[in-house]
Formats: sequence, structure tokens, C-alpha cells
Amino acid sequence: MKATADIQVIPIGAGVSVRTEVQRAHQVLEESGLPVSLHPNGTSMEGELADILDAVRRVHETLHAEGTVRIASFVKLSTRTDKEPSLAAKMF
Amino acid sequence: MKATADIQVIPIGAGVSVRTEVQRAHQVLEESGLPVSLHPNGTSMEGELADILDAVRRVHETLHAEGTVRIASFVKLSTRTDKEPSLAAKMF
Amino acid sequence: MKATADIQVIPIGAGVSVRTEVQRAHQVLEESGLPVSLHPNGTSMEGELADILDAVRRVHETLHAEGTVRIASFVKLSTRTDKEPSLAAKMF
Amino acid sequence: MKATADIQVIPIGAGVSVRTEVQRAHQVLEESGLPVSLHPNGTSMEGELADILDAVRRVHETLHAEGTVRIASFVKLSTRTDKEPSLAAKMF
Repeated sequence: MKATADIQVIPIGAGVSVRTEVQRAHQVLEESGLPVSLHPNGTSMEGELADILDAVRRVHETLHAEGTVRIASFVKLSTRTDKEPSLAAKMF
Repeated sequence: MKATADIQVIPIGAGVSVRTEVQRAHQVLEESGLPVSLHPNGTSMEGELADILDAVRRVHETLHAEGTVRIASFVKLSTRTDKEPSLAAKMF
Repeated sequence: MKATADIQVIPIGAGVSVRTEVQRAHQVLEESGLPVSLHPNGTSMEGELADILDAVRRVHETLHAEGTVRIASFVKLSTRTDKEPSLAAKMF
Repeated sequence: MKATADIQVIPIGAGVSVRTEVQRAHQVLEESGLPVSLHPNGTSMEGELADILDAVRRVHETLHAEGTVRIASFVKLSTRTDKEPSLAAKMF
């Protein structure tokens, strides 16, 4: 099932500046091969719902493996059966 | 990897009252076998991150299979490596 | 206009444990005098939309005044004109 | 206090296509005079926290006044005291 998504990742306890971890999270999402686009509060994605969720899981696993102790992520998922969901269709 | 989560599901275009779909979403999350608890804006869960994400995917698939045309879900995920995350520990 | 709300506050850079700040945020919301209830990922509230938004603003102001350097909050607002929105009506 | 924000508005029960209401919500946010930018899952804003919250309230009031029966909004707010928060600083 195709979906669009919006993913924001916040490392907690990694200091006031979280740029490094947020960039890394975006990079891991990008490595999914799915279309991604950055905005000030997250990364927009589109693709198979299962692939998007896998990418979210990899963000948590990768950041923890690289030393981030605590992570909160905020994920918006959007699916529909009347037509193919796409990020482009959500812009106006 | 263990996680805590908060999941809110909103059917779009299913009418002003969305109780039936929201109850069904909660039921699908419950069928995961993971501990769940309901609050006014969603369902709290804890368990393996992969299992939580699978349950979220099943909510979308189940509701669409049962006729909901459009679904937005809002998922908060929380993981940490310094101790086992739990819903109980997030209450005070 | 009456609303129901869900408010989660995350201090960033305040260390891995954020219990003190999260408790304080809940307390400031409670001081609004509006009905509040705690769940593992936030505080549910109901009341006048303007009063809820004021309470959210006071959370940011109070925590900063007390030393928290960076705050992210996640606010869900729900309003409807067909009947009085209430937290109780959102439980089933 | 300056803030950055991300605001997504979902009309419930307004049909499967919500483009008209979502565009109108963006327009109301824009009428605040604050810098706004659109992304696939919302509108980014920056400005005084009180002004942003006022704009959110006006979105609910305006859409209801124009006939939308039920509205859910999802608001992310970010404030910090170590430097001026800006949308530009959140891109990399």
C-alpha cells in the first residue's frame, strides 16, 4: 500500500544543538531510496507504507548504534484507496 | 529494540463521527498482543519497535479493507538505550 | 469556542531524563484551571480554545524562565460545531 | 518570545478531498503577516509565539464560520533562549 509520510526525529539529551543527529536521521531516510524532501520540521517521504516504516525503524536503530541515548520521533502517515497518494498532490 | 508509542488514527471523509473507525483502529492495535491503553487522543503502546510499526501498518490495511477511503495516522515513537522504556515510567 | 487538546512538551538539551520539566509543564497546564488528564505521552485538556492556547504559551514561557534552553511542544487541537467537544466523548 | 511552528489542519467529515479547507487554512495563516512556507503536510511559520497561536485559533474559527463542522489541527512549536529561532536555521 502506497503512503505519504512526514517524519521528525528529536534526540533527547544530546545537547541543545541537535543538527548532527537530525541530519543523520534525514540521511538514513534518504538511504531507503524513496523520494524524500526536507522541510524545517521534518522529512516528507512517499512510497510503500512498509518501506517507510522500515526506514523509521532504521533511523532509531542507527542513531542509537551511533551513540544517541534517547530518541523521540513524530510520524504522520497518510494512505487512501481512491487514488495513488503522492507528496506532489498534497501541494497546491 | 523496545519502544513506547502513541498512535492516533483519523479517517478522512468517513463523516463527522469517526467513533467506529477509531474504535476499530484501537482494536487492531490491541490484537497485536502488546500492552495498549486508550486516552482521548489515541492509544498508548509499548513493545518491540518492529511489532508496533507492524500494528500501525495493519491498522491502515484493515480500515481500508473494511471500506475507509482515506486515513491519516499520527505516531509518536520513543526509544532509549540507558534503560528499558515503558509506559509506566512515563507517568508521574 | 470549546476545544479538546493534547499537549506534549519535550525539553531539548536538558539531559536524557526530562521528568522534572515534563512534570512542570503538566503543572502549568493544570494551573489554567481547565480539566486536564495525564497520559504517557502528554496532557489531555478541554476548555475554551483561547484558554488552552494561553496555557501552552505559559508552558513555554515558564520553562524558559526557569532555565530550560530549548523546548519543542506537540499540540493536537480538536473543535466541532455540531456538539460540545469533550474529552469524555472521545473515550469509548 | 519568538518561535518556529508547523501547523497541519485536517477537516473531518468534509469529504475525502480536503484541498479547499487545507488551502483556506494556509491562507488564514498567511494573513497573519508572519513568514509562512508550505510543505506537503502543513505550513511552517515563524514569529512571536502569541501571534502564531492567534493564527491557529483564527484557522479554527474561520473554517467553522465557513461551514466546516469538525477540525483537527496538529501544531509543533519550537522555542529556545540561546539564540533567535528561525525556519532557515532548521534547514541544512
